[in-house]
Amino acid sequence: MKPEEYYFEKEPYYEQVHDEIAVFEAAYLNQLPVLLKGPTGCGKTRFMEHMAWRLKRPLITVSCHDDLTASDLVGRFLVKNSETVWVDGPLAAAVRAGGICYLDEVVEARKDTTVVIHPLADDRRVLPMEKVGELLEATADFCLAISFNPGYQSVLKDLKQSTRQRFVALEFDYPESELEKKIIQNEAAVDGEMAARLVKFAHMTRNLKGSGLDEGASTRLLVHAAKLIASGVKPVVACRACVAQALTDDSDMLAAVNELSASLF
Amino acid sequence: MKPEEYYFEKEPYYEQVHDEIAVFEAAYLNQLPVLLKGPTGCGKTRFMEHMAWRLKRPLITVSCHDDLTASDLVGRFLVKNSETVWVDGPLAAAVRAGGICYLDEVVEARKDTTVVIHPLADDRRVLPMEKVGELLEATADFCLAISFNPGYQSVLKDLKQSTRQRFVALEFDYPESELEKKIIQNEAAVDGEMAARLVKFAHMTRNLKGSGLDEGASTRLLVHAAKLIASGVKPVVACRACVAQALTDDSDMLAAVNELSASLF
Amino acid sequence: MKPEEYYFEKEPYYEQVHDEIAVFEAAYLNQLPVLLKGPTGCGKTRFMEHMAWRLKRPLITVSCHDDLTASDLVGRFLVKNSETVWVDGPLAAAVRAGGICYLDEVVEARKDTTVVIHPLADDRRVLPMEKVGELLEATADFCLAISFNPGYQSVLKDLKQSTRQRFVALEFDYPESELEKKIIQNEAAVDGEMAARLVKFAHMTRNLKGSGLDEGASTRLLVHAAKLIASGVKPVVACRACVAQALTDDSDMLAAVNELSASLF
Amino acid sequence: MKPEEYYFEKEPYYEQVHDEIAVFEAAYLNQLPVLLKGPTGCGKTRFMEHMAWRLKRPLITVSCHDDLTASDLVGRFLVKNSETVWVDGPLAAAVRAGGICYLDEVVEARKDTTVVIHPLADDRRVLPMEKVGELLEATADFCLAISFNPGYQSVLKDLKQSTRQRFVALEFDYPESELEKKIIQNEAAVDGEMAARLVKFAHMTRNLKGSGLDEGASTRLLVHAAKLIASGVKPVVACRACVAQALTDDSDMLAAVNELSASLF
Amino acid sequence: MKPEEYYFEKEPYYEQVHDEIAVFEAAYLNQLPVLLKGPTGCGKTRFMEHMAWRLKRPLITVSCHDDLTASDLVGRFLVKNSETVWVDGPLAAAVRAGGICYLDEVVEARKDTTVVIHPLADDRRVLPMEKVGELLEATADFCLAISFNPGYQSVLKDLKQSTRQRFVALEFDYPESELEKKIIQNEAAVDGEMAARLVKFAHMTRNLKGSGLDEGASTRLLVHAAKLIASGVKPVVACRACVAQALTDDSDMLAAVNELSASLF
Amino acid sequence: MKPEEYYFEKEPYYEQVHDEIAVFEAAYLNQLPVLLKGPTGCGKTRFMEHMAWRLKRPLITVSCHDDLTASDLVGRFLVKNSETVWVDGPLAAAVRAGGICYLDEVVEARKDTTVVIHPLADDRRVLPMEKVGELLEATADFCLAISFNPGYQSVLKDLKQSTRQRFVALEFDYPESELEKKIIQNEAAVDGEMAARLVKFAHMTRNLKGSGLDEGASTRLLVHAAKLIASGVKPVVACRACVAQALTDDSDMLAAVNELSASLF
Repeated sequence: MKPEEYYFEKEPYYEQVHDEIAVFEAAYLNQLPVLLKGPTGCGKTRFMEHMAWRLKRPLITVSCHDDLTASDLVGRFLVKNSETVWVDGPLAAAVRAGGICYLDEVVEARKDTTVVIHPLADDRRVLPMEKVGELLEATADFCLAISFNPGYQSVLKDLKQSTRQRFVALEFDYPESELEKKIIQNEAAVDGEMAARLVKFAHMTRNLKGSGLDEGASTRLLVHAAKLIASGVKPVVACRACVAQALTDDSDMLAAVNELSASLF
Repeated sequence: MKPEEYYFEKEPYYEQVHDEIAVFEAAYLNQLPVLLKGPTGCGKTRFMEHMAWRLKRPLITVSCHDDLTASDLVGRFLVKNSETVWVDGPLAAAVRAGGICYLDEVVEARKDTTVVIHPLADDRRVLPMEKVGELLEATADFCLAISFNPGYQSVLKDLKQSTRQRFVALEFDYPESELEKKIIQNEAAVDGEMAARLVKFAHMTRNLKGSGLDEGASTRLLVHAAKLIASGVKPVVACRACVAQALTDDSDMLAAVNELSASLF
Repeated sequence: MKPEEYYFEKEPYYEQVHDEIAVFEAAYLNQLPVLLKGPTGCGKTRFMEHMAWRLKRPLITVSCHDDLTASDLVGRFLVKNSETVWVDGPLAAAVRAGGICYLDEVVEARKDTTVVIHPLADDRRVLPMEKVGELLEATADFCLAISFNPGYQSVLKDLKQSTRQRFVALEFDYPESELEKKIIQNEAAVDGEMAARLVKFAHMTRNLKGSGLDEGASTRLLVHAAKLIASGVKPVVACRACVAQALTDDSDMLAAVNELSASLF
Repeated sequence: MKPEEYYFEKEPYYEQVHDEIAVFEAAYLNQLPVLLKGPTGCGKTRFMEHMAWRLKRPLITVSCHDDLTASDLVGRFLVKNSETVWVDGPLAAAVRAGGICYLDEVVEARKDTTVVIHPLADDRRVLPMEKVGELLEATADFCLAISFNPGYQSVLKDLKQSTRQRFVALEFDYPESELEKKIIQNEAAVDGEMAARLVKFAHMTRNLKGSGLDEGASTRLLVHAAKLIASGVKPVVACRACVAQALTDDSDMLAAVNELSASLF
Repeated sequence: MKPEEYYFEKEPYYEQVHDEIAVFEAAYLNQLPVLLKGPTGCGKTRFMEHMAWRLKRPLITVSCHDDLTASDLVGRFLVKNSETVWVDGPLAAAVRAGGICYLDEVVEARKDTTVVIHPLADDRRVLPMEKVGELLEATADFCLAISFNPGYQSVLKDLKQSTRQRFVALEFDYPESELEKKIIQNEAAVDGEMAARLVKFAHMTRNLKGSGLDEGASTRLLVHAAKLIASGVKPVVACRACVAQALTDDSDMLAAVNELSASLF
Repeated sequence: MKPEEYYFEKEPYYEQVHDEIAVFEAAYLNQLPVLLKGPTGCGKTRFMEHMAWRLKRPLITVSCHDDLTASDLVGRFLVKNSETVWVDGPLAAAVRAGGICYLDEVVEARKDTTVVIHPLADDRRVLPMEKVGELLEATADFCLAISFNPGYQSVLKDLKQSTRQRFVALEFDYPESELEKKIIQNEAAVDGEMAARLVKFAHMTRNLKGSGLDEGASTRLLVHAAKLIASGVKPVVACRACVAQALTDDSDMLAAVNELSASLF
C-alpha cells in the first residue's frame, strides 16, 4: 500500500450542511475518533474525502462486511515465492502513514475488529499487532472515523455502547432543496429547471419513507438520473431506472413512484 | 483467464422488449453500473451477451452462491509446482481487460463481495486488491452488472440499500405473445402454430402464479418443450417433462397444469 | 479416475414404467440436462445405469450431502510427495470423458455447487475451472443428470427455480403390481406367489403413507425381504426386519405393519 | 491399522433374545447392510462383537459424533517427516480387510458420511476414495452395520429415508428377567438372589420411563451395581451410584428411585 | 507432558461428606469410570486431587469448553523446525501414564470428544488414536473421571444417556455446618467465631437459591471472604466483594445479600 | 512482546470512589483474581492502569470479542522465514513477566478461553500451554483481572457461575458529582462552572436510563464534550456530538437530550 496514492490533490466537492467541518476539525485536534451517522447516498464518503483534503492527510477507506476480520485490517503474513512477508492491512497502513482510516458501515464487520479499534479509539491510541509483536502508536496525525446507518441496525448488528461511547458523532441527512439542486448541477450537465424538478421528485419519494419505501431517493440517485438525462434518456425513463427501480421491487410502489415522476416531467 | 475467449463474434439473438438497450448504453457511457431485475429464464443472461456483443467487450459471468467470497472474485495466490503464482479472479480479470463483469444472482454471494463491488460501483471505480498491494483502476471500458430476482428475496438475502442505490436498474419480464412466439421459433424447429400454442400454454401457467405456482413457465421452458417436440416427443409429454414437472412437485398442481396442456395439444 | 471403469458392459435390468426412456433420449440428443424426481428405492439409480448402458456412456454418480462443495465436484490440487498435482473431481472427469454425471439428491449439496452446474445446464455447456484457468467445454456426449425427492424438501433444502427451470424433469414412482412382482422375481429367488404377496404387502403399507408412515415400502425393501426369505428366514421375520423396522421406529406403527404381514404370510 | 488386532479369539458372551443371530447371518450372506436399533446399554455392541466372532471377521467400531466427517472414515494424506503418506480410515480399512465396520450412533455424524456409506450400502458395494482416485470394491466378506437409538432422534438428527431403506433393521431391547439375571451373574460375582433383586429393581425403574425418567436402568447399569456390590459396597449405595445417579439429576426422581432400592435391599 | 509433574506429594486437604471415597475406590478397582455431579465450588476438583494422592496416580485435569475437540484430548502432529512431531494430548498422556484423567464440565466440550471417551468408558478400555494408527489400551491403573453440574444443563448441553450410563455417578453438595467451618479455618487464618458466621451467612444465601439467586455461596466463596478478612478487609466489605458480587448482578438481590451480611458482622 | 513497555512510569490519574483500591490490594496479596463490573466509560480501564502503577507491575490488556480464542491468549507457532517460532500470547506473556493481565469484556470471548483462565483463577494458578508441552506456573506477582458489564449480558453472553465464583468482584459506577467535576477539570481545560454544568447534564441523561436510553452519559463522554468546548466548539454543539449522538439514534430521544443541554448552556 502506497500512502501517497491516497492523498487528494484537488478539493473534493462538498457543501457543508451544518457545522460538521468545524466539529470534525476540533475532534481531530483533540485526537478523538469520529462516527458518521446517516442514510446511504447522502454524502458521508464525500465528506471524508473533503476532510482528508482539508487536513492534508491520506484517506484509507474500508467497506466493512460480514466476513471482515481484524487480520484484514491489521495485516497478515503472506507467502510470496517461498518467503514470508508481512503485509500491513489498511488500518495499520493508515496508522503508520498518519492518515485517516475510514471504516464504512463498521457494524457489518466481524466482532474481532472491535479489539483492534478500541485501543485506537480511546486515549491509549495504540494498535496492538500481536503477530509481529509490535504495539504501533498512533501519532497526532492519525484519525479514526467510522460510519453506520441507524436506519438499518438490527439487534445483531448494532454498535455496542462500549464502542459508540468512544466516538464524537456527526449526523448526516439529505441537504435542503437549494443546496441539493446546486449539487446536482455540479455533478451532471443539466439545467437549473431540471435539477429543481429532480429535487422536487426526491422530496415526494422521501415523504413515502415508512409508507412503503425503506428509503427516499438519495442525492446520489438524483445525480444518476441527471447524468442519464444529460445523455439523452427521457426524464421519466431515467427516473424509473435510476430512482424507482433502485428504491423498491414492489410493483404497487413502483407504479406510485413512476406516476410521481410522470406528473413532473 | 484469456479475455479473448469471452468476446462474442456472432450477434447473440435478443429481442428488445422496452428501451433496455438504450438505457444500458447510456449507463455504460456514464460509467454507471447496472442492475438487472426479473425472474429466471426471461432473457437476462442473453441480454448481457447481446450488450457485450454490441459494445464489443468481453463478458465474464459469475453465478453467485452462498459460498462465493471476495477472494473468488478478486483472485488468490496458488501454489503450483512449489511456486507461488497470483491468479486473477473473474472480477479482476474483467477490470484489467476492460470487459463487462456480470454477477448473476449477486445476493446469493457472501457479504465480503460487497467490499469489492462498492468501490467499483461508485465514482471511485477502483478494485482494491489488498493481497498484491494494488489498487486496480477501472478504465471507461469496464462495466459492472449484477442481477437479482425480487420474487425470491428473503430478509436474509436482500440487496442492501447501500448496494442497490449504486446501480441503474432495469426490470425484465416475459416478452409479449408475438415476440415470444418469434423467439421460440428462432430457437427450436417448430412451426408457428405449435409455437403459438406453447405461448398460450405459458400464459395459462403464468395466471396460476400465486395460486399454487411460484412461477409460470418461462420462455426458456417453452424452448425446451419445443426442442423435445421437434425431436418427436408428443407435445403433452414434452410439456409435462419440460414445463409442469420443472415448475412444481405438488400433485394437484401437476394434474392441473397437465390438463391445461391436454386441452391445447 | 479411470472412465473405462464406469461403463456398463451388461445391460442393467430396468423395466420401463411410462415413456421415460424416450424422453431421456430426446433430452440427451438436444443436450438438455435431466432431473429425476421420486422417492427413494423406486429405481432412479438403476434407470441411470440402464440409460448409461443404452447410450454407451460411462456413468459417474455422486451422492450429494451437506458438506459437498464445488471443489469436490470440479477437482483440487493435491500435494503428493511434495509435488502439486491437479486431480479432476467427478464432474470434471465426466465432462472430459463425455460421460453422464449423475448428482444424486443434489439439494443436499452446498450452494456453491450451483455455480458449477448452472453454466453446464444451459446452452453455454461449459465448466469453469478457475483454479487451473480453464473453461472446459462439454461435448455433445456429455450429459448432466440430477435427482431429488420432492417428499422431503424443506424450505432450506429446496431446488431454486433458477436451477430447476434448466432441467427436463422425469417423475418416478413405484411400478404397478405385475411389473413390481416381475422385478422382485428377477432380483431374488422367490416364486411368483411369494412375490405377489410381497407386492400386496407393499400396497398395504403405501396406503398408510401420511397416516403414520413417511413412506410406504419401496421396491428395494421388497427385494431385501425376498432375499432373506430365499435364504430361509421366515416371511414374517423378514418383513419385520426388511420393511417394518426400515420404515418406522414408532411402536404402534410397527405393530400395525407387522399385523399386516402376519395376515398375509 | 492392523486388522489382526480386531479379531475376537474368545467368544464374546452374548445371550440371544429373539432370532437376531439368524437374521444377521442371512443379511450377511445376501450382502445386505444391517441397522441395529435400541436404547443404550442393552447389548448392541456386545452383539456385534459376538457376530464378528461367529463370522470370523475383524470388527472395526466407530463411535459417531457431530464432527465426524467422511475423511475420518475413508482416510487422509498425512505428512510424516516431510513425506506424504495415505492413511486409510477405519471404513476403508474394514473394506480392505473384508471385515465388519460398525458405525455406532451414525446419525450423530456429519452428513458427508452418507456419501460414503450409500454406495457401500446398496448393490454397488463400492467405496469411492476420490483423494487417491480409487474405487474400492467390497468383497463378499465385508459387512456394514450401523446403530441408532430411536428414542433420542430429533428432527435434526434423524436417519434419512434414503439411508435407512438400504438396511435390514434389527430391534434390540432389555432381555427378559431370567436371561438378564443370567447375564448379571456372568459378568459380576454376585449370587442369584442378588442378581434377581437387581433385575426386579431394574423393572421398577423401567416402569418409570416416560413418568420422569428418560430411560430405565439398562442391563449395563445392573452389571455396574453388581460389580460394586461384589467389591463390598452396600447394595443401596451401589444402586444409588450406579443406577439412580446415572439415570437422572432430578432430586424428586432420585429420591423415588432410591426408595425403590431401599425397599428391595 | 511430564506425568511426574502431576503426582501429589502432600495429601490434598479433603473432608469426606458421605461415602464417596469408598465408592470411588470400588469403581477404580472394577475399572469403571466415574462421574462427579454437583455445583461449582463444592470440592469436586479437590476430591479428585485427594483421590489421586490416595491412589498414588498422577492427575491430569482438562477444563472442557465449547471449542474443545477430540484432537485436543488425543493429540496432534505439530510442525517444529520443519519436523513433524506427534504430541500426545492430555487424555492420551493420562492413558499412557496410567493416571487419572479428569474432564471438568465435560458437556461443554464438542461432541467429537464422546467418540474418544466412549471406548475408554466401557469394558473395551481402549483409546483409538487414528492419526498414528494406534489403539492405545488402558492398563488397570488408568481411570477416567468427568464432572458436570446438573443445575446448568440445557437441552443443547446435556449428557447423553449413552454417555452417562457408562459411569458410576457421585453427587456432591456443600458440607454440613461443622465440616464447612472446619474447612474454612483450614484454608484461611480466621478464628472459629468468624468461620461460623461465614457458614451462617452462606446458609442464608443458599436459602435464596431459586428466589432470585442461581446459586448460594459456595464453600470456595467463603474461603475467599475469609482470606480477605484475614488480610484486614472489613467482613461486610469482604462478603460484598467475595460473595454478593460474585453471586449476582441484580441490584435488589445485591442489597438483600448485603443486608444479610450486615446483620451478621 | 516486551513487558518493559507495559509499565506505568507516571501515576495514572484515578479518583477512588469507595474502597476498591484496598480490596484489590488484599485480593492481589491473597493471589485471588479480580472481576470488575460496571458500565462503559466509568473508569475500569483507568483503575487497572492505576493499580498496575501502584503495584509496580506491567499491565497487559486484551479487549475480548466474539472471535478471540484460547490460542490468541496463550500463543501460537508462527512461520517466519521458513522457521517455526513460538510466540507467547498476551496472557502467557503476562504470566511469565509476573504482570497483570486484564481481559476486558471477557464474556465476549470464545468459550475456549475459559479452559485457560480457570486453572489460573483458582489455587492451582497454572497456565497449561499444551502446544509447547509446558505447564506455566504463575508467581505471586501475577494477577488476573477481568471485566464485564452486567447491563448488557444476554443468555448467550453471560459469565458462567463456575467462572464468576472464582473471582473477587468489584462494582464500578459513575463518581458522585464533586468527584466527577474534579475529574473533568483534570482531563480538559474547562473552568469549574462549565464542568459543573456538564455533570448536571450527565445526571439528567442518567435519569433517562431505562426510559428510552440504554445508558446515561458516562464520565468519558463528558470529558469528550469538555475537550471540544475547550477547542472553541459551542457547548450545545459539543454536547450534541459527544453525548446525545453517542448515546442514541432515536430522533425523539435526540431531541429530548438536546433540549436538556439547551436548557443548561
